[in-house]
Amino acid sequence: MKNGRKIDLALEAKEFFEDHPEKKSTLPGVLVEEETLFGLPLTRVKILDGQGEDALGKPKGTYLTLDLPDLPRDREEILNAARAVAAMLEELPDLPQEGLVLVTGLGNRQVTPDAIGPRTTDRLLVTRHLVKSLPEQFSDLRPVAALAAGVTGTTGMESGEVIAALVKKLKPVCLIAVDALAARRQERVCRTIQAADTGIVPGSGVGNARMALNKENLGIPVIALGIPTVVDAGTLCMDLMEESGQEFDPSAFRTEGAEWFVTPRNIDSQVDVLSRILGLGISTALHVDFSVENVERLTT
Amino acid sequence: MKNGRKIDLALEAKEFFEDHPEKKSTLPGVLVEEETLFGLPLTRVKILDGQGEDALGKPKGTYLTLDLPDLPRDREEILNAARAVAAMLEELPDLPQEGLVLVTGLGNRQVTPDAIGPRTTDRLLVTRHLVKSLPEQFSDLRPVAALAAGVTGTTGMESGEVIAALVKKLKPVCLIAVDALAARRQERVCRTIQAADTGIVPGSGVGNARMALNKENLGIPVIALGIPTVVDAGTLCMDLMEESGQEFDPSAFRTEGAEWFVTPRNIDSQVDVLSRILGLGISTALHVDFSVENVERLTT
Amino acid sequence: MKNGRKIDLALEAKEFFEDHPEKKSTLPGVLVEEETLFGLPLTRVKILDGQGEDALGKPKGTYLTLDLPDLPRDREEILNAARAVAAMLEELPDLPQEGLVLVTGLGNRQVTPDAIGPRTTDRLLVTRHLVKSLPEQFSDLRPVAALAAGVTGTTGMESGEVIAALVKKLKPVCLIAVDALAARRQERVCRTIQAADTGIVPGSGVGNARMALNKENLGIPVIALGIPTVVDAGTLCMDLMEESGQEFDPSAFRTEGAEWFVTPRNIDSQVDVLSRILGLGISTALHVDFSVENVERLTT
Amino acid sequence: MKNGRKIDLALEAKEFFEDHPEKKSTLPGVLVEEETLFGLPLTRVKILDGQGEDALGKPKGTYLTLDLPDLPRDREEILNAARAVAAMLEELPDLPQEGLVLVTGLGNRQVTPDAIGPRTTDRLLVTRHLVKSLPEQFSDLRPVAALAAGVTGTTGMESGEVIAALVKKLKPVCLIAVDALAARRQERVCRTIQAADTGIVPGSGVGNARMALNKENLGIPVIALGIPTVVDAGTLCMDLMEESGQEFDPSAFRTEGAEWFVTPRNIDSQVDVLSRILGLGISTALHVDFSVENVERLTT
Repeated sequence: MKNGRKIDLALEAKEFFEDHPEKKSTLPGVLVEEETLFGLPLTRVKILDGQGEDALGKPKGTYLTLDLPDLPRDREEILNAARAVAAMLEELPDLPQEGLVLVTGLGNRQVTPDAIGPRTTDRLLVTRHLVKSLPEQFSDLRPVAALAAGVTGTTGMESGEVIAALVKKLKPVCLIAVDALAARRQERVCRTIQAADTGIVPGSGVGNARMALNKENLGIPVIALGIPTVVDAGTLCMDLMEESGQEFDPSAFRTEGAEWFVTPRNIDSQVDVLSRILGLGISTALHVDFSVENVERLTT
Repeated sequence: MKNGRKIDLALEAKEFFEDHPEKKSTLPGVLVEEETLFGLPLTRVKILDGQGEDALGKPKGTYLTLDLPDLPRDREEILNAARAVAAMLEELPDLPQEGLVLVTGLGNRQVTPDAIGPRTTDRLLVTRHLVKSLPEQFSDLRPVAALAAGVTGTTGMESGEVIAALVKKLKPVCLIAVDALAARRQERVCRTIQAADTGIVPGSGVGNARMALNKENLGIPVIALGIPTVVDAGTLCMDLMEESGQEFDPSAFRTEGAEWFVTPRNIDSQVDVLSRILGLGISTALHVDFSVENVERLTT
Repeated sequence: MKNGRKIDLALEAKEFFEDHPEKKSTLPGVLVEEETLFGLPLTRVKILDGQGEDALGKPKGTYLTLDLPDLPRDREEILNAARAVAAMLEELPDLPQEGLVLVTGLGNRQVTPDAIGPRTTDRLLVTRHLVKSLPEQFSDLRPVAALAAGVTGTTGMESGEVIAALVKKLKPVCLIAVDALAARRQERVCRTIQAADTGIVPGSGVGNARMALNKENLGIPVIALGIPTVVDAGTLCMDLMEESGQEFDPSAFRTEGAEWFVTPRNIDSQVDVLSRILGLGISTALHVDFSVENVERLTT
Repeated sequence: MKNGRKIDLALEAKEFFEDHPEKKSTLPGVLVEEETLFGLPLTRVKILDGQGEDALGKPKGTYLTLDLPDLPRDREEILNAARAVAAMLEELPDLPQEGLVLVTGLGNRQVTPDAIGPRTTDRLLVTRHLVKSLPEQFSDLRPVAALAAGVTGTTGMESGEVIAALVKKLKPVCLIAVDALAARRQERVCRTIQAADTGIVPGSGVGNARMALNKENLGIPVIALGIPTVVDAGTLCMDLMEESGQEFDPSAFRTEGAEWFVTPRNIDSQVDVLSRILGLGISTALHVDFSVENVERLTT
């Protein structure tokens, strides 16, 4: 996560149509749908072809955004949100029905708002070692492996390098990369779950050398799953100005706010709940024979 | 800590004179001095009498503010800042030369920017139990006790109630209360250490019932030691506007930002360093026979 | 918790009758019963009068021991164990039906096997502040307060001193003290929950001055709730010898093992589950209008 | 770390000569030396050739064991121990003078006595990313990368698989693997630092498939650095029996103790200090232009 620089395609696609509602049904090569998944609003933007790519300036693919009206608190609400996450992932055409899946948590475990990726990997139903060591007993189980790739400042490696090495070694059929995002609007922080099958650029890269995690670089489909946990300080300010009906010129804002987090006071407990939802949701999507309750039992 | 509501006397007194430099030498009943302590800038405001109280709208007492140009990183810089904290405390007339001192850490240990009080208590040279159980061996040692008083939401008690109960039981000669503060200016966050001998109001109190920790309520001198670790979102916004030369009307800002923290990205490591400085500084001030290096050795 | 020294009345009473089954129905002034609570085996020993006190060498009171055949993993198993803990507490004659209850977690939060007390206080439904600040809205709610009293080495105070001060100030009708215990048998570690209405001696006291938390000292009933989390090294050794049919002389064992923990490899997750059970159980016992599911919802 | 199964060559070699002092100067192909490094006793066993391999049943290589008479507490003692660790590493012929070094921390970060490897990686002076992105400014700096490889139960991968993938990708000239060990003698726990240039077998492998980290498997020299943090329960028992002069038959001990840790009560703080020593020592050995004080400044 790096304020204001994270590529954040799913939310951007959603916001484009919020700002231009008239285009929803007219843009060629773009399909926009709204529905509800387990009672939660979902926005689906599909860019179908080159025409759609030109119209939105984004690569072909499926971009999903799930809204959480409130932070799930109750166990039943948590399981419900996890079911919706599982359904989001299952509808992405790039998630294969079988074969080894590698899940990576991006971001810095030591910095709470950035820890959502690593903490999600802690909560997965990981199975590759079982399938490998006892293939007969676990023949029905899909192999899943997971690694929090660390941050460059403490590993000396880009996340992309670590992942690329593992992809080459393990030959998974798909990578799921989980990361914390920076939101442009305060109201989205910890209230939006995004998925896209177009990959992700880890936020903590070194200068220009940051390597995208995508099919082009890794040779396998990359599903990005993210939740905004901070809002850019400049953005927050603009929001507050706008609400108060005052004039402002965003370009005048300096970048000093960029090293600052604007984050909810209770971010620790929010990250805890959201990691649990993502862990349950991913595991349920990957282990199709298991209900979310099964997964919960096996990962507590 | 509660954004925008923490009584923050030392810094306010300092800022008054930054905004009204012409009054520095003219306000009756007020003494303002600037010097350096171990190379760090110190502002000392003394309100000497009723005239001074009227002029500044604050109670009689000594208000000290130490500036840290940068976060101390190097061990030598940390020890140096601790020496300055010890010197600040030692010059407060309300810190008795001997007798039991109770130190309390206010704030929520689970919320990083609010944890500076509890984490400081973890780093103190606590001695009351030694003096009490082996009085002959430790006859030269000053008794010191410490407790993180918790937050009302998890204890069901105000910090002030817990402290008042302990003060009644232990009969210390002085209370030192350590807390995280909210700054009005981004540049002060984690860069200012404040001390005053006029007490403190715990930020996490319940409605109007919040009980001040001061001599009036507790019957003993109360020294408040604080470091701002967050900035109010509205304030941050005003700062950014001002820098960009734009007009703004602060009254228009809504209070929604109040439950949000604006905090440095690396707040975890900053709180760690600052708690270490406060713990070393308080312990060195209380155990006058010990150098800061002695204290460091005994508390690592 | 201090290996081998914790007064551990409930378990001792239970073990006495395991070693002397013939006495179960014959000891005058002692009532021994075995039943199941929510499917879990419960041993109830009541010492009814002076005759019983002489026979067992323990004070009059009720001693309950609940066995957990396995560590509850599943949420339903956790809720079930919590229901049994609530039922244990509710049957103790010393738990008043209404009025403020203070819960204290004894032990060292920084040392995993000793952290069960403090972590239980984190998981309680604490209400005193609500009842106090909004008495009309919360007139039906029982006031509950909680504090982890810390350990002498870091507070300079005995737990008993902190608790006594709070009892004097808050005037609760009852104290519930939660602590980690040392077991004499490996098989009991993390598999036994004990309750007694005869008080407790905090394990981490200073020399001989350790103050018992009981009715005599505090003036209110004290319910002790404990779970063994370590086994004494000497005890473990004797168990292993016995199993292998070898001779041994326990008195020959030196005390060097006393500063060592023998603890299950996954003690972190076991302490986590057990604290959750105790927190849910205590809260359900105190808030009689709430089911364990209600409590779970409000404390997650 | 897995009780009783960790290959623990350096200590074994040392203990062989403690048990057979007469062989010290007579075994062909084996060189045994004792000296002190920065005041700390060092045992050096070199197996020089096939004769030595046959005599000791271990592969050719250098095995070093450093004794810490007490846990270093004082900063100066910590730096001194780190200097000794650096000197140990520097004398191993397999540590190249220049080129990228990969350091891996083995073991489970969530289980305190097993966390010494991961926590050591947190404390390294990692530089590969600096050298790579700004080669001109950092031309004198040796590139160092680090990763805690996780444990199979949470990653689905053996540590060896993760490391092998990274070695293939990064092509380091050497791997340093840091791990917690199980000691056979209580007195060695947290008091011995071992280094050998013959590789290591991660303790948490899956069944028989555990892959050794050594030159044969990885194609580069592997230096193992380890500290025992637990003692096997059966071993502890034998030690206690022996001290009390009783007979015992070790073969009679069952394996139930194997899932139990016997560990010092204050293991948390001991692991903290020891990780700091290893981190400083490794970094000082790798960055030969830096003193241990330089490294301390850059990694605090």
